[in-house]
Amino acid sequence: MPQLNENFLRLEKNYLFIDIAKKVNAFKAANPDADIIRMGIGDVTLPIAKCVVDAMKKGADEMGVKETFKGYEDSGAGYDFLKEAVSGYYKSFGVDVKPDEIRINDGAKSDCGNIVDIFGDDNIVLITDPAYPVYVDTNRMNGRKVIFADSNEENGFAAMPDDSVHADIIYLCSPNNPTGSVYTAEQLKIWVDYALKNNAVIIYDSAYEAFITEENIPRSIFAIEGARKCAIEMCSLSKTAGFTGMRCGYTVIPNELVFKSSDGQDVSVSQIWGRRQGSKFNGVSYPVQCAAAAVFSEEGIKQTRENIVYYQRNAKVISAALDELGIKYTGGKNSPYIWLKCPNGLGSWEFFDKLLNEANVVGTPGAGFGKNGEGWFRLTAFGDYDRTKEAMERIKKVFG
Amino acid sequence: MPQLNENFLRLEKNYLFIDIAKKVNAFKAANPDADIIRMGIGDVTLPIAKCVVDAMKKGADEMGVKETFKGYEDSGAGYDFLKEAVSGYYKSFGVDVKPDEIRINDGAKSDCGNIVDIFGDDNIVLITDPAYPVYVDTNRMNGRKVIFADSNEENGFAAMPDDSVHADIIYLCSPNNPTGSVYTAEQLKIWVDYALKNNAVIIYDSAYEAFITEENIPRSIFAIEGARKCAIEMCSLSKTAGFTGMRCGYTVIPNELVFKSSDGQDVSVSQIWGRRQGSKFNGVSYPVQCAAAAVFSEEGIKQTRENIVYYQRNAKVISAALDELGIKYTGGKNSPYIWLKCPNGLGSWEFFDKLLNEANVVGTPGAGFGKNGEGWFRLTAFGDYDRTKEAMERIKKVFG
Repeated sequence: MPQLNENFLRLEKNYLFIDIAKKVNAFKAANPDADIIRMGIGDVTLPIAKCVVDAMKKGADEMGVKETFKGYEDSGAGYDFLKEAVSGYYKSFGVDVKPDEIRINDGAKSDCGNIVDIFGDDNIVLITDPAYPVYVDTNRMNGRKVIFADSNEENGFAAMPDDSVHADIIYLCSPNNPTGSVYTAEQLKIWVDYALKNNAVIIYDSAYEAFITEENIPRSIFAIEGARKCAIEMCSLSKTAGFTGMRCGYTVIPNELVFKSSDGQDVSVSQIWGRRQGSKFNGVSYPVQCAAAAVFSEEGIKQTRENIVYYQRNAKVISAALDELGIKYTGGKNSPYIWLKCPNGLGSWEFFDKLLNEANVVGTPGAGFGKNGEGWFRLTAFGDYDRTKEAMERIKKVFG
Repeated sequence: MPQLNENFLRLEKNYLFIDIAKKVNAFKAANPDADIIRMGIGDVTLPIAKCVVDAMKKGADEMGVKETFKGYEDSGAGYDFLKEAVSGYYKSFGVDVKPDEIRINDGAKSDCGNIVDIFGDDNIVLITDPAYPVYVDTNRMNGRKVIFADSNEENGFAAMPDDSVHADIIYLCSPNNPTGSVYTAEQLKIWVDYALKNNAVIIYDSAYEAFITEENIPRSIFAIEGARKCAIEMCSLSKTAGFTGMRCGYTVIPNELVFKSSDGQDVSVSQIWGRRQGSKFNGVSYPVQCAAAAVFSEEGIKQTRENIVYYQRNAKVISAALDELGIKYTGGKNSPYIWLKCPNGLGSWEFFDKLLNEANVVGTPGAGFGKNGEGWFRLTAFGDYDRTKEAMERIKKVFG
């Protein structure tokens, strides 16, 4: 009988969105006429920009003609035209990342989850809490010890390292999912210095970087001195350009990121990851890569920026209503997420129920993202503008 | 310092295609006017069928309109319309697979490589040799013990199980890459019985099933009684419909595939794999799924069948030339691969050099696929018809 990987059986049952769906469905059954507004799942709603759609269709047409047909990609790490476009995008905010340091993938979740493959199972993994569940679950699937850095009200949900604690692998996400908090350049420098001191690697999730509006908030960990010696960055077009259903992202591994094997050899992280991908991944669909490259064209940047601005306007509507109600929150400014403190001392799920029953608005209980999430709640700015306004009016009525 | 997964450092350097490219480049530098014909890499060359391209473009257009835009897929396992199309395809050759047993992916290599995640590291893995290197490498990346079943001239490169040997996880590929050999229904039944007796799981790679022409050669392991209790099947549109650059495949896990945990609980393989994918995969691009579904439409089957027939005609040209030369081979009949015995007792690489230097034809040395490949050589039928004819004329001149 094949022995199963029994770490799977010890994972916490992560039924957050299933539990939410069950509660919503029960409510709908009991209140068939209720006009429910969903501000829960972190999915975009605006369509793909026209020039991006056109680029995909052009790519599809090329696949239908023998002379321009594309089979397997040589490297499986992305076509040069797309890696150069991503490199140019980094340059636009002052970060130097070479095309050969960029690997194109089918979305940040894949690499973010699969990166565990190249590390041993005896590492100490440090994750800020609350967090995107993928970081914790994928490490626990390999039986690794996970420790947490507390993000909480005191530190504005932006946990900082504890010098007395050792870690080998560190997960950071800024702008943060679920809290919408961001690290300043000074804070990130402290994390990078901590990683260098511990000889640790930082897995940096920058999926929400396109929402950053403030000057001193880095859009990449590689804006920080020293990061090229300790960090891997994962980003995605999901939130930058509405690619949640198109599936394209990229991982940056600096060429100088090298760790030692137990017998003292230098091992290039990029090479070992390339070896992993060479056996378990075969590249991204060519027309999808054409679409992705169009996102970084002049017209693409303009068109996708309009969508970001639309969502940012929603975030302002949510923030303004919470300000009016005197409800504390993080996020909204550099993030599509607003992370609010449940009013009147309510627990995350109590607030969820009240919001659903009395305002017919669905959000996400913070408790689902880790222990520090209890008593907090996530709303997203990815909805329709008028519906977002309507939702906040209802919330003001219930909690005003 | 993060401890690396040092199994990677112990992998054999698999530089097969890099070594080939180096030799070809050196030859080209020395002979700039040589007209080289490539019959090495297993990549398709004919374009995607028109109705498939059109379906992708329609999907892309839907992504550009708010009302039809698709974000994250709920399940990440594929849209119902595609799973139903795949289920219907199975039905067309008499195999009953339910849509909820099918998971859509970005190509068979991903699932074929990632499936190791759900099994423990103490399993004994049995792989036929020669084999697609992914099976061996991905298990060795987890430090697993791999044993081999010899495919060789005596058994027509179709290894059968040895009842005195125990295995927990078995990899089979029919039609086989690289040997083009196939298992009959009777042979597959012996493998299934062996797996059931050992309580083992079979990972069955059916990527080349569309090339099967003979009656008694199953196109799916699920045509065999008992397979639903021991097998997982992985297939792809790469060779069926030229999707090597489009990236779409599917994995079938029967609902009754259940193994016991160490404390005696029943664990559904489908559920544990779903949990894995839920943390490390986010579904296939919607327009790619639209394209894939079109492959299984009446028009799609007709158009993609024409390409298969074209490649099969190439295979006949290759086989006929080898017959004329009295060179032994397997494959070609139910496979795009022809696996030939190097004439005059030449080693795989010696034959490669002679073929390149004297016929200016590039193929793949069998030694690159495992120890039983030494002295054998792979040619593919995926090229242009006239070029294939030309290549075989040259080979006849050199070896005739």
